[in-house]
Amino acid sequence: MGKLLRINTKEKTFGFQDVPKAYAGLGGRALTSKMILDEVPANCHALGKSNKLIFAPGILAGSPAGNSGRLSAGAKSPLTGGIKESNAGGLVSQKLAKLGITALVLEDKPQNDEYSIIVINKDGVKLIPAGDLVGKGNYAVMESLWKTYGKSVGVLSIGQAGEQCLKGASINQADMSGRPGRAHGRGGLGAVMGAKKIKAIVVDDKGAPRLEMKNPDAFKAANKKWVDMLLKHPVTGQGLPALGTAVLVNVINEAGAFPTKNFRTGRFEHAQDISGEKMAELIQKRGGITTEGCHPGCVIKCSNVYHDKNGKYLTSGFEYETIWAFGAHTTIKNLDDIAMLDRLCDDFGLDTIETGVAIGIAMEGGMIPWGDGKAAIKLLSKVGKYAPEGKIIGNGAVFTGDALGVDRIPVCKNQAFPAYDPRSCKGVGVTYATTPMGADHTAGYGVTANILGVGGTIDPQKKTGNIELSQGLQIATAAIDAAGLCLFVAFAVLDNADGLPTIVNMINAQYGLSLTPDDVMTLGKSILNNEKEFNKKAGFTEIDDQLPEMFLESFPPHNTTWDFSTKELSKTLSF
Amino acid sequence: MGKLLRINTKEKTFGFQDVPKAYAGLGGRALTSKMILDEVPANCHALGKSNKLIFAPGILAGSPAGNSGRLSAGAKSPLTGGIKESNAGGLVSQKLAKLGITALVLEDKPQNDEYSIIVINKDGVKLIPAGDLVGKGNYAVMESLWKTYGKSVGVLSIGQAGEQCLKGASINQADMSGRPGRAHGRGGLGAVMGAKKIKAIVVDDKGAPRLEMKNPDAFKAANKKWVDMLLKHPVTGQGLPALGTAVLVNVINEAGAFPTKNFRTGRFEHAQDISGEKMAELIQKRGGITTEGCHPGCVIKCSNVYHDKNGKYLTSGFEYETIWAFGAHTTIKNLDDIAMLDRLCDDFGLDTIETGVAIGIAMEGGMIPWGDGKAAIKLLSKVGKYAPEGKIIGNGAVFTGDALGVDRIPVCKNQAFPAYDPRSCKGVGVTYATTPMGADHTAGYGVTANILGVGGTIDPQKKTGNIELSQGLQIATAAIDAAGLCLFVAFAVLDNADGLPTIVNMINAQYGLSLTPDDVMTLGKSILNNEKEFNKKAGFTEIDDQLPEMFLESFPPHNTTWDFSTKELSKTLSF
Repeated sequence: MGKLLRINTKEKTFGFQDVPKAYAGLGGRALTSKMILDEVPANCHALGKSNKLIFAPGILAGSPAGNSGRLSAGAKSPLTGGIKESNAGGLVSQKLAKLGITALVLEDKPQNDEYSIIVINKDGVKLIPAGDLVGKGNYAVMESLWKTYGKSVGVLSIGQAGEQCLKGASINQADMSGRPGRAHGRGGLGAVMGAKKIKAIVVDDKGAPRLEMKNPDAFKAANKKWVDMLLKHPVTGQGLPALGTAVLVNVINEAGAFPTKNFRTGRFEHAQDISGEKMAELIQKRGGITTEGCHPGCVIKCSNVYHDKNGKYLTSGFEYETIWAFGAHTTIKNLDDIAMLDRLCDDFGLDTIETGVAIGIAMEGGMIPWGDGKAAIKLLSKVGKYAPEGKIIGNGAVFTGDALGVDRIPVCKNQAFPAYDPRSCKGVGVTYATTPMGADHTAGYGVTANILGVGGTIDPQKKTGNIELSQGLQIATAAIDAAGLCLFVAFAVLDNADGLPTIVNMINAQYGLSLTPDDVMTLGKSILNNEKEFNKKAGFTEIDDQLPEMFLESFPPHNTTWDFSTKELSKTLSF
Repeated sequence: MGKLLRINTKEKTFGFQDVPKAYAGLGGRALTSKMILDEVPANCHALGKSNKLIFAPGILAGSPAGNSGRLSAGAKSPLTGGIKESNAGGLVSQKLAKLGITALVLEDKPQNDEYSIIVINKDGVKLIPAGDLVGKGNYAVMESLWKTYGKSVGVLSIGQAGEQCLKGASINQADMSGRPGRAHGRGGLGAVMGAKKIKAIVVDDKGAPRLEMKNPDAFKAANKKWVDMLLKHPVTGQGLPALGTAVLVNVINEAGAFPTKNFRTGRFEHAQDISGEKMAELIQKRGGITTEGCHPGCVIKCSNVYHDKNGKYLTSGFEYETIWAFGAHTTIKNLDDIAMLDRLCDDFGLDTIETGVAIGIAMEGGMIPWGDGKAAIKLLSKVGKYAPEGKIIGNGAVFTGDALGVDRIPVCKNQAFPAYDPRSCKGVGVTYATTPMGADHTAGYGVTANILGVGGTIDPQKKTGNIELSQGLQIATAAIDAAGLCLFVAFAVLDNADGLPTIVNMINAQYGLSLTPDDVMTLGKSILNNEKEFNKKAGFTEIDDQLPEMFLESFPPHNTTWDFSTKELSKTLSF
């Protein structure tokens, strides 16, 4: 088994530690959440010295298992005040695993303003002054670090938003082209990294030994079955590779659950202009890439590279939720403007969902006009200039609403809603309300059975079955996040009785274990219980599992409302 | 008994209602808190249509009882998210009582940006367009309204901060000279008034009948005793009239509990320059007023008028906590700069404590230099210009800290600490932690027995006795706030066994009742229980009764720390 690498950011020291018994066998979200519960005082200031920023590869990381390269980042969230796990693709997860690092833990904080970068390779760890990388955006930082440390090193970095400790700040990862298209977006973890004055982390696994595999033949067989399963499912094998996640624009709009103009209606009249079909058409015409993996070992390949009208690179990893947040939510209908807003977020290091929702709130508050893409770009650019307007927008939806006196703010636990209305997609609404993460579609993606017909069919507009749907998905998702698997494998797993057993077979083959699918579900439950325990210690109650008043409004076109009581939702309080 | 006057700010309609049984006999804070608990959904947005802004005179308001003219304002607080009562002097309380209005309740909110003013007199109620008062500061608003409606009308108004719905926004009251020197400062109630688009409220009692008095002779006798008691106590009869509340600068500094440079030490080397003695000397030299009442019937007269070095009016109602917040906390040592900051707060309608603490946090975050009064004035002026920097500062300490990535923010329940360090004045520290109001010295002024030797002596640096001290004071204070009495009467009441019985005698004589002192204490407890129940429904737990991590730091000169456990403090959770 690997080691924990603890770095004291104040003293600029580090140490490797054997994985203690309490953390044995844990990876990804299971490990980050357990460590935060055990080691971070729940009532500490998220930007203070007592918070820890933890990166943990999943249990399957470093192995050839398909789609096993997601890295979990965890901390007390500056945005929600609760526990946070945010995972992303990129190169770091597999490389940390190959270096035998089970978790990288950033502790304490410096008392001065001197930024460092951390370089980790087979020979050890170095903290070196960040020099002229300070003040730079993620594009420049990653370009510089690939130049210095070699193309293909893993990079985690923060842009200007993280340096300013903004609550919307992400930690970005170099994608397979060395660009910051992948992000640990949600919950403001970039601000925690900024508070600890770490500008970037370089992970280089050159010369590291191959990961030990207890039962290579069994692993190979299971992985083959696994990859086949992913490639054969219509969502993971066709829809996502062809159009990326933006395939959902037309689907969710058609379902009447596409929140438009700050959640006033479920259909956007200009949905076609920002659809996945439109995006794919433009990408093909302009010479971009429609189908790219976000990490080595990805077989779904739903990422992309989007060029501008002159055929020049504009952005990558351009996702459905981003297109929604900067598009339907703000009523901006120009896909190039939306792509530029995505690029700015990647460069400054900002969560596109939180920031897009904040831009919509700025429109609601009269700061800029509805639907004005150029005004939104100008406003967002202020983050890179360290200007006061940027400090407002970059701190997210609630902060922007509070700055402007807006009372319609779509958040739960202070985190902005993603691209699915909770009234007309109640399965994901229950997740927004009850996940310990704050409103987060990836924590229990009820869109599956609600709209996509995956893993059964549950009416998205009625209450019946949606609490159970969300609950089951939250448990499964926590386990998937612990394995380090991409969440999208769930599409295949939910429709295939062999899905979960195959994952378990890969884990057993890698570690020489004899886990059962039940053990994996038990792990999922224990992750959620740990997270809920931390949040309870931080002062959360079932009241924090409610949605804001504005969701009592009737929501066209289906005229649905949010109608779950606190008591009904409290069923999901523990597992 | 009087009537409730309910005004629908959306429909611009109003109605008088007999006081329902549930509210019978209640006044001031007892009434505002009970109404909020019963009528405001605890999880509503404080700036939304479901919140209510309630003004209630105390039980003794309108009578000749000494110091009985404090008006309670209540709502769900935009700052704390919990229940709020903030009381102030001025002219409105007595006038509402004489008009037979037990509470004025502002409901709903307009959907457009058209501000109104409300004019209440013996003939009824009018809502009229605010016209060119919109965008104006409180000085101009009050001057204009006194010109139109006659000198001596009561005025409640908001400045630019309230219009912007900032969390630090106060509701100001015209003082006896028609200036905005009195404020319902804490908790952002000005933002609630701004959300309801009410720029000002004029209350004119001309021609109203005299208040009915059940037993005039008994009242007269009790009130004589009462006034004597106030005039004979050294604090209310001498210290406060001579130097105002600023008498405390030297006292608290000497005690080592004067929080300096964002709560780093308990003594400010320039305390002399900002002391009450210095202030009185300047006032006398420049032709101001050292001794003035804040409302008709005040016999303590601790307010003042402060002139600039040219002998021109600069500010009034210049208080200890203001001088501390803009002075020791920020290390500004120029009293004229501090007076200008006070004036700007009164004009824009901002809580001086919240705003002063926010300015200190802006210094902590590097926005302006420590101790730079001119830079602070320039920064604060941005509030009046509706500029982004103003939206940051005007939203208070936490907001400013979050904008700038500062992790040392002295707040409880999101509200900034006043001018007494909780480590070296633990009696008031317990109040900061446990009052349902958020950190508020006036909710249980433990400074009495801790430092002033009033009502006994309890070591301010040790835990022993301080929970009980705070608890007793919180109950008594709630009752005093219900009576509509100035909190400072407590100095005399705590040192005089006849104090409470005399208050009870006045109430009994006015209403023909036969209450006992025990009944009054029971009332105090019920107020606190109502408030705690609202907060519980709003999601507060005992975790919200903790002080921030930074108070675990050792505090010079006495090297004290905050050492109460959550369990110890939970004793104060209900009464």
